[in-house]
Amino acid sequence: MTSASPIRTDAVVIGAGPVGLYQAFQLGLQELGVHVVEGLPHAGGQCAELYPGKPIYDLPGIPACSGQELTQRLLQQLAPLRIPLHLGQIVTSLQRLAPDRAEPSPRFRLATDGGLAFECDALVIAAGVGAFLPRKVPVPGLEAWEGRQVHYRDPPADIWTGQRIVVMGGTESAAALALQLADGGAADVTLLHRNDRFAIDAELDERLQSAIGAGWVRLCMGQPVGAIAAADGRLEALEIATADDRRLTLPLDLFMPRLGLNPRLGPIADWGLALERKHLVVDTEGYRTSEPGIHAVGDVNTYPGKRKLIVCGFHEATLAAFAIAQWLRPQERVVLEYTTTSTRLQRLLGVGPG
Amino acid sequence: MTSASPIRTDAVVIGAGPVGLYQAFQLGLQELGVHVVEGLPHAGGQCAELYPGKPIYDLPGIPACSGQELTQRLLQQLAPLRIPLHLGQIVTSLQRLAPDRAEPSPRFRLATDGGLAFECDALVIAAGVGAFLPRKVPVPGLEAWEGRQVHYRDPPADIWTGQRIVVMGGTESAAALALQLADGGAADVTLLHRNDRFAIDAELDERLQSAIGAGWVRLCMGQPVGAIAAADGRLEALEIATADDRRLTLPLDLFMPRLGLNPRLGPIADWGLALERKHLVVDTEGYRTSEPGIHAVGDVNTYPGKRKLIVCGFHEATLAAFAIAQWLRPQERVVLEYTTTSTRLQRLLGVGPG
Repeated sequence: MTSASPIRTDAVVIGAGPVGLYQAFQLGLQELGVHVVEGLPHAGGQCAELYPGKPIYDLPGIPACSGQELTQRLLQQLAPLRIPLHLGQIVTSLQRLAPDRAEPSPRFRLATDGGLAFECDALVIAAGVGAFLPRKVPVPGLEAWEGRQVHYRDPPADIWTGQRIVVMGGTESAAALALQLADGGAADVTLLHRNDRFAIDAELDERLQSAIGAGWVRLCMGQPVGAIAAADGRLEALEIATADDRRLTLPLDLFMPRLGLNPRLGPIADWGLALERKHLVVDTEGYRTSEPGIHAVGDVNTYPGKRKLIVCGFHEATLAAFAIAQWLRPQERVVLEYTTTSTRLQRLLGVGPG
Repeated sequence: MTSASPIRTDAVVIGAGPVGLYQAFQLGLQELGVHVVEGLPHAGGQCAELYPGKPIYDLPGIPACSGQELTQRLLQQLAPLRIPLHLGQIVTSLQRLAPDRAEPSPRFRLATDGGLAFECDALVIAAGVGAFLPRKVPVPGLEAWEGRQVHYRDPPADIWTGQRIVVMGGTESAAALALQLADGGAADVTLLHRNDRFAIDAELDERLQSAIGAGWVRLCMGQPVGAIAAADGRLEALEIATADDRRLTLPLDLFMPRLGLNPRLGPIADWGLALERKHLVVDTEGYRTSEPGIHAVGDVNTYPGKRKLIVCGFHEATLAAFAIAQWLRPQERVVLEYTTTSTRLQRLLGVGPG
């Protein structure tokens, strides 16, 4: 996609998990311009993605709290600072614009797969285990139709009306998507899965089974082994190896695999930052990587004593914010203020007197 | 006071402010024996002492929370681990029992002003700005009657019945104590303060003024300049320099100054640990002081990048707990587990399945 004109800001936070959200909060308290970029279509990161409803018991002062609830609390806390979150945007490129601090800003330029671009002086990588990318279907040549007939993320509703659609996977999102399409104007919906067992809750399973029973969703048990192109170059059908060892041809207009998400550090691994076992090496004074202006907080970083706990990421984000504020304002001394007593911080948060 | 037989435990935490409480929680998750010692008669430390009802806005995931509420939340979170809190106990001495780790445990012996003694292998100082000690009245010789006729902390109620009592100070605790004594069987209550302005809220001020108007509490404006002993050695009276520059003699049985609390690092400063501007120098891997086995977390410590924020103390306490567990179990590798998924941690906390 082509990029729009870049968004100019002080700092960009990559990742809207708990630590990325708190990073934005702390940078906001420093009155820096901040934008957050997140690959998933929602905030919350790993803890909202992997176990949204399961409680966490060791967040200080919160005896029990699910990943989803923590995300809501952090979003609520962040809201008064009005920091834009750009969801569903995976960072695909990073350029260094100014080789040293004496040069004029901006220092970095970032672009995303959704066509956004940012220019900033500081960057905080709070990417956890990396962007959660959809698991791909291992059929040779299929990538040629991605974004046209093959969709790993939900496309706009208007493209599926009247179409023959194959959804693939045994996941909750596969089952829910098949039901949604059957209900929403698709001509024909096939759910392709290697067997008839789905990793979904009882209520969804019951709805799925009754849709299959009524013929609204057809179940095809097997694995795709080939892609068949029409004379005009369109994807015409998938070749399927069935569970009972036959071959069949499954004609389609759209193919929507939903095989789950796979964390990948992605392009961050290629930026030349110092790594140790796939983690970004940082100092513990400002959680700086080997590149001035680029910080890393949360599960993505490493330092002596590092433990991958949310409580540690919150601290790292706090000191990173102070270090960035000091770096961007070399003439000033960035002092500590308390939200309990500082009228400046209370004004920013829209609380307290006046 | 004489010491009872010492309490033998793995670790002692000095200070029950937010960071000390969370330190105990993290040590408990490591299944270490822990005792907490706190100088004040209640948990909560500075934030409960200095601004109990004022909200804090920057605790991650807690958009607004008073110091008092935070303390309650942390105590609730800690409760399942059944860790003893010893309140109103100021640590007065520390002895090293074993000069190096090869020696048999215990390594340290601690004693408190309340007559408790502990023997432990690890110590975490979470003492904030130090123990909050009552401000003393600067009258020469007065200390001789401390604990008998001069009481800086509330004595048992039975000793004041029928007594002539002088309460001193313009604080909330001075005013509240004077009213409580007048109402509770004292023969005679005088409130000694340098003027008639009190740093108290309107409701308490109204009750105080009406008690003074009714003669239940007598107001004496002035400053004590001397202590007058009787022939039997008892404190008989105070010599007062009044606000209008006269001298008078104020006879009494008990003297209860309430001049506020003064934070003091106290004996901790004398233990030979490395200090930098009155703060304990620590590493950022395990928040270890210069003495093996002694860690320091929260406002009492310093390291490059240090900011005195509660969120930072929570992280420090977490890594200190891992470092202590590893130090006390040198043969094992202390691994990270998540409360969301670890049945061991869930059993400790009395939550989750089974």
